Amino acid sequence: MRFGVLGTGVVGQTLGGKLVSLGHEVTMGARQAGNEVAAGWVKAAGGSASEGSFADAAAFGETVMNATAGASSLDALAAAGAENLEDKVLIDVANPLDFSGGLPPSLTVGNTDSLGEQIQRAHPKAKVVKALNTIAAEVMVEPGLVPGSHTVFIAGEDDGAKGQVRALLQELGWPAKDILDLGSIAASRGTEAYVTLWLRFWAAAGTRAVNIKVIAG
Amino acid sequence: MRFGVLGTGVVGQTLGGKLVSLGHEVTMGARQAGNEVAAGWVKAAGGSASEGSFADAAAFGETVMNATAGASSLDALAAAGAENLEDKVLIDVANPLDFSGGLPPSLTVGNTDSLGEQIQRAHPKAKVVKALNTIAAEVMVEPGLVPGSHTVFIAGEDDGAKGQVRALLQELGWPAKDILDLGSIAASRGTEAYVTLWLRFWAAAGTRAVNIKVIAG
Repeated sequence: MRFGVLGTGVVGQTLGGKLVSLGHEVTMGARQAGNEVAAGWVKAAGGSASEGSFADAAAFGETVMNATAGASSLDALAAAGAENLEDKVLIDVANPLDFSGGLPPSLTVGNTDSLGEQIQRAHPKAKVVKALNTIAAEVMVEPGLVPGSHTVFIAGEDDGAKGQVRALLQELGWPAKDILDLGSIAASRGTEAYVTLWLRFWAAAGTRAVNIKVIAG
Repeated sequence: MRFGVLGTGVVGQTLGGKLVSLGHEVTMGARQAGNEVAAGWVKAAGGSASEGSFADAAAFGETVMNATAGASSLDALAAAGAENLEDKVLIDVANPLDFSGGLPPSLTVGNTDSLGEQIQRAHPKAKVVKALNTIAAEVMVEPGLVPGSHTVFIAGEDDGAKGQVRALLQELGWPAKDILDLGSIAASRGTEAYVTLWLRFWAAAGTRAVNIKVIAG
């Protein structure tokens, strides 16, 4: 499958690299084509990796991943172009973190709204699925770094799109039973807010490889 | 030990009842002494259960539990009286939920502040420990309702107070290894925000008996 991965940070590089290693074609998008980090990633990833602008990557992808910093995601997606996102699954991995007050960060949007919802409203023809925003990049593509069974969330308006993301998550190594569908994209309020707790687990656990397992009685 | 439990809702009744059954002396506090629900609880709990005003309960308790609705917790604690909370462990079980926008609720305070912090600021001489706010009342006192190992959080400024809460949690049935200390009372921002995700688990799991296990790699 063809993927457009927006964002050249650790999350974009890690997800993009894993997708290439799985045999997918991936274009990494940056603010401008020829981005140095993206070019380095292309070399390292090999295979069918390529790079370009946000619009290049979005146009290339049958599925698009938003792996930009949350504070600039709406700008990045505007630059990607609504026409390049139309009818596509748009996996939103970002968190609206605000580092201006120091660590741990607070959120730039939350409580009665979320980044996932903002993105869906800004791109009503894209099929936004919030996913993977609750775990560190290395765990996203190698769930076994956290021992035993643990949970990854999906949320979005379109059941078909969520089905595709479910399949992709399984390809990344997530057992089907560990994928929890929280319903509509408004559930992003919950998963994004949770990130402010999860970041505190890093300090308590002494590792970024920390996740939760949801257990019901 | 003598406990003052502030709040006559399900959480206060459940925690108070369990404490009585464990042989503790418990006074349930309400806005006014003679509250009908509190009187009913006293009859049902038997043992050394009694009821009174918020101030009566706080004065009685060597340890005080805030089990009032988050939106009225600051008022309830003001009514309890700073002098009745001084030097005592004050376990804050409340969540600042705002139901005005429907279900699931949003928060009345969050992101860069929390109810736990507000309470500690309002009562600087109390030793506030945020705990038990991330699980349903019936699970607080019977962790086995959720199968296997799962996590309860504590947060607060005073290590001695956290040690006392740790011991109390073990008395309630929580194994020591499942009690995770998140650090200062500011971590209440994380556990209170998480509640907006946890409430979505109820619908996804079809039960209130749902909790998370924090797993580190």
